Amino acid sequence: MTGKNAFYAQSGGVSAVINATACGVLQTARQNSDRIPKVLAGHNGVIGALTEDLIDTSYESEAAIAALRHTPGAAFGSCRYKLGSLHEHRTQYERLVEVFQAHNIGFFFYNGGGDSQDTAYKVSQISREVADPIVCVGIPKTVDNDLPITDCSPGFGSMAKYLATSIREAALDLAAMSRTSSNVLVLEVMGRHAGWATAACALAAERESDAPHILLLPEVPFDEARFLARVDATLRRQGYCVVAVSEGVKGSDGQFLSAGSHDAFGHAQLGGVAPVIANLITAKLRGKCRWAVPGHLQRSARHIASGTDVEQAYAVGRAAVEFALAGRNAVMPAIRRLSDMPYRWDIFDVPLSAVANKEKMLPAEFIRTDGFGITDAARHYLAPLISGEAYPPYRNGLPDYATLQKVRAPKKLANVFVV
Amino acid sequence: MTGKNAFYAQSGGVSAVINATACGVLQTARQNSDRIPKVLAGHNGVIGALTEDLIDTSYESEAAIAALRHTPGAAFGSCRYKLGSLHEHRTQYERLVEVFQAHNIGFFFYNGGGDSQDTAYKVSQISREVADPIVCVGIPKTVDNDLPITDCSPGFGSMAKYLATSIREAALDLAAMSRTSSNVLVLEVMGRHAGWATAACALAAERESDAPHILLLPEVPFDEARFLARVDATLRRQGYCVVAVSEGVKGSDGQFLSAGSHDAFGHAQLGGVAPVIANLITAKLRGKCRWAVPGHLQRSARHIASGTDVEQAYAVGRAAVEFALAGRNAVMPAIRRLSDMPYRWDIFDVPLSAVANKEKMLPAEFIRTDGFGITDAARHYLAPLISGEAYPPYRNGLPDYATLQKVRAPKKLANVFVV
Repeated sequence: MTGKNAFYAQSGGVSAVINATACGVLQTARQNSDRIPKVLAGHNGVIGALTEDLIDTSYESEAAIAALRHTPGAAFGSCRYKLGSLHEHRTQYERLVEVFQAHNIGFFFYNGGGDSQDTAYKVSQISREVADPIVCVGIPKTVDNDLPITDCSPGFGSMAKYLATSIREAALDLAAMSRTSSNVLVLEVMGRHAGWATAACALAAERESDAPHILLLPEVPFDEARFLARVDATLRRQGYCVVAVSEGVKGSDGQFLSAGSHDAFGHAQLGGVAPVIANLITAKLRGKCRWAVPGHLQRSARHIASGTDVEQAYAVGRAAVEFALAGRNAVMPAIRRLSDMPYRWDIFDVPLSAVANKEKMLPAEFIRTDGFGITDAARHYLAPLISGEAYPPYRNGLPDYATLQKVRAPKKLANVFVV
Repeated sequence: MTGKNAFYAQSGGVSAVINATACGVLQTARQNSDRIPKVLAGHNGVIGALTEDLIDTSYESEAAIAALRHTPGAAFGSCRYKLGSLHEHRTQYERLVEVFQAHNIGFFFYNGGGDSQDTAYKVSQISREVADPIVCVGIPKTVDNDLPITDCSPGFGSMAKYLATSIREAALDLAAMSRTSSNVLVLEVMGRHAGWATAACALAAERESDAPHILLLPEVPFDEARFLARVDATLRRQGYCVVAVSEGVKGSDGQFLSAGSHDAFGHAQLGGVAPVIANLITAKLRGKCRWAVPGHLQRSARHIASGTDVEQAYAVGRAAVEFALAGRNAVMPAIRRLSDMPYRWDIFDVPLSAVANKEKMLPAEFIRTDGFGITDAARHYLAPLISGEAYPPYRNGLPDYATLQKVRAPKKLANVFVV
C-alpha cells in the first residue's frame, strides 16, 4: 500500500451543509486514491479518534457520498469536546498519534468552528514531533459565522436564508391578522455571542416598512425603555411589529435576558429569550404578542439551503484535501471575497494559528447607530451569502436524505481510551 | 352593467395557501366577467364588509393575481371576528345586506375554517329574506384540518410537509450531537384541539427507529409517568429522542399543560408547552433537552408548500365560483378522495349547514393503542397530502411574494358601522 490514509471528522454544532464539506473531502480523496487510499471518519468527531471508533468510508457507495451534498446534520456524528492544553493533557495527543499510526493515517482533517480549529492546530503541533508527521488541515464550519479571516463560514448562509425567508413569510401572516389578533411577533435567533444570524434577518426587509422592524443584537446591550418605545412607534406606524432577537442578548448588567425564567413546576426555564421579550411587550404595551423559537430547525434546514453556501461548503472540503496533498500543513482553507456584485470568491489558505480560538463579532460599521438594525455595508456583505437555491431531491413528499452504512474499521490497538 | 359583483374575504388564522384559493376565485371570476364584473375583497375579512372597506381587485394586474398562488399570508387581510346570532345581532346582518346592495354584490365567498363556514351559513340565511338574494359559498381553509366532510382542508398539507421535513432535518442534527450535547428535542406543533398536525410529524419516520419517537396528541390525556418512561426507553435504545407535542395537550385534569408558567418578571408565560415538557425531562431524566416552537413559521412556510395542497387550494377557489354561477347557494366546495395510491380526488359541494361549527378530531383508529403514535391507516390518509413540491420564484435569494395595490372601492354609504 502506497500513500497515507486520511482522518476526517466533524465537530461542534452541526449545520445544513457540513455534509456537503464531507462530500468535498471524500470525493476529492477518492480522486486521489493513489495518495490517499482510504478516508477514515471519526465517529462523533475527535472522540472517534481517541476511542479508535473509525468509520471506513470506502464502504460507502459513490451515490451515498454524492447524496451527502444535500443532507443536513453530521453524517459521521459530531461532538462538543475540546482537547485540553498540550502541557496538561499530553496523553490525549499521544493517544491520537498512536491511533493515527496504527491506521497509517498521514492526513488529519477537522471540520468545525473556532474550537475545532484550535484542536486542529494543537494536533499539528504534536504531529511535528513524531517520526512520521501528520499533515493537519482545519476546515471551516459554523452557522455563527464567527470565524476570523475567512469572508464567511459555511453553514451560515443557509441559516441566514432560512431565517430571512421565515421572517418574510411569518410577517405576511402577522400583518394579515393584526386587525383582530396578534400584532407583534418575536423570533428568537441562534448566536450566543455574535449577531451575524440576527443581522441576516434584516435581508427580508426591502423597504423601511418591511419586517423585521427591530433587531436585538448581542453586540448591543438591551435597553428596555428604548426598545418598548420602538415597538410602540412601529405599531402606531405599521399596525404590526416583527422583532428578531438573538438568543445571546444581554441586559446592561451583562446577564443573558433569557436567564431566570421559571416554569409551572418551579424549574429554571431552559433558554428562550423570545418568550421573555414577548411577555415584556404584553405587560407594558397594548401589543398582543406571539413568539417563535425555531431552535435546531434553523441550522438544519437543508430544504432551504443557500446555493452559494452549499458550493462554498463543498469547495472548502475539496480545497482541504488539495492543500494537504500539496503539503501545506497547519492551515485552513478560507473564503476570499473578490467582488460583491456579481459575487465572486475563491479559496486561499490561512495558518491555523491565526484562526484558532478567535471570534469575529459583527463590526460596529455593520450596526445602525440606533442599534436596532443593520447598515447598507452589512446588507452588501450579507446579500450574496443567501443567493441561489439548492433543493434536495424529494421522495414521498419529503427530502430524501443520505443514510450511510458506517462500517467500522477493525480496531488495531489493544488498549481502550475512555473520554 | 349586467351581472352581479362578488364579495370575497379571508377569515381566521391564515395559511401558506389561502392566497392560492384567492387566485382561484379571482381568475375564475375574471374568466366569467360577463356575469361577475368585479370581485370586491373585504379588507380584513368580514370586517371589510361591515365597515365598507372594500378592495377593488379589478385594479390588480393579471401577474399580481397569478402571484397570489405562491404567496403566503392573506393578501386582503384576515380577521378573527365571529358574527353574532341572527336573533341577537340582526343589525350586523342588515348592515352586510346594505353594503352588498350598495355595491351590486350578488355573490358572497367566505374563505376560512369552521367559524367562517358558520358566518357564510348565517349570511345565506339572511340573504334569502331580501329582495335580491345573495348566493353564498363558503370556501374551506384551515391548517388544523378539522373541517368535517371534506377529505382535508387546504392549508393543512403544507403545514404538515413543513413539520415532517423540519423534524427529519432537526433529528439528523440531534442524532449527530447526542454523544456530547443535547439528546432530546421537543417540537411544539399547532393545533389547539385536533391532533392532525402533530400526527403528520410521524410521516418523517419511515422505520420504527426514526424520529419522531413520541407524539403527544391533544386527543390523548398526558400521563407524565408513562411519557417519561417512554423517553427513557427511547434514549436507551436510540441514544436520542424526538418528541412532537401539540400545543393543545392537556393533563388528566383537563388543563392545558402550557398553562401556569411564569417568566423572570413574574408574568404569566404565554403559550409554550414545549419548554414545559423539556423542563420536565431535564428535571426527571438524565436527558439534555432542547425545544423548538416554530409558531407562525409553520403555517406560513410557503417555501416548502405541498404541491397537492396548492392545487387543492386553487381548486376550491375555482369551484366556489363555478358553484355560485351554477346557482348553488349555501354550499362549500369539499375535497373527495377517490383513491389513495395513486392519490386521486375531486371536488363536490356540501351544504354549509353540515359543516358550520363542527370540528373533526383525529379518529380513534388513527391513534396507536399506546397513544404515542399513529396507525398505518393514519399514514395512508396523511401521506398524499404532503406530496409534490411547489416552489415559489426567488429574487435576491428570497421568495418573491406578491404585493397587491389594494385600491379601495369608493364608499357608497353615508353611515359608518363600528365593529
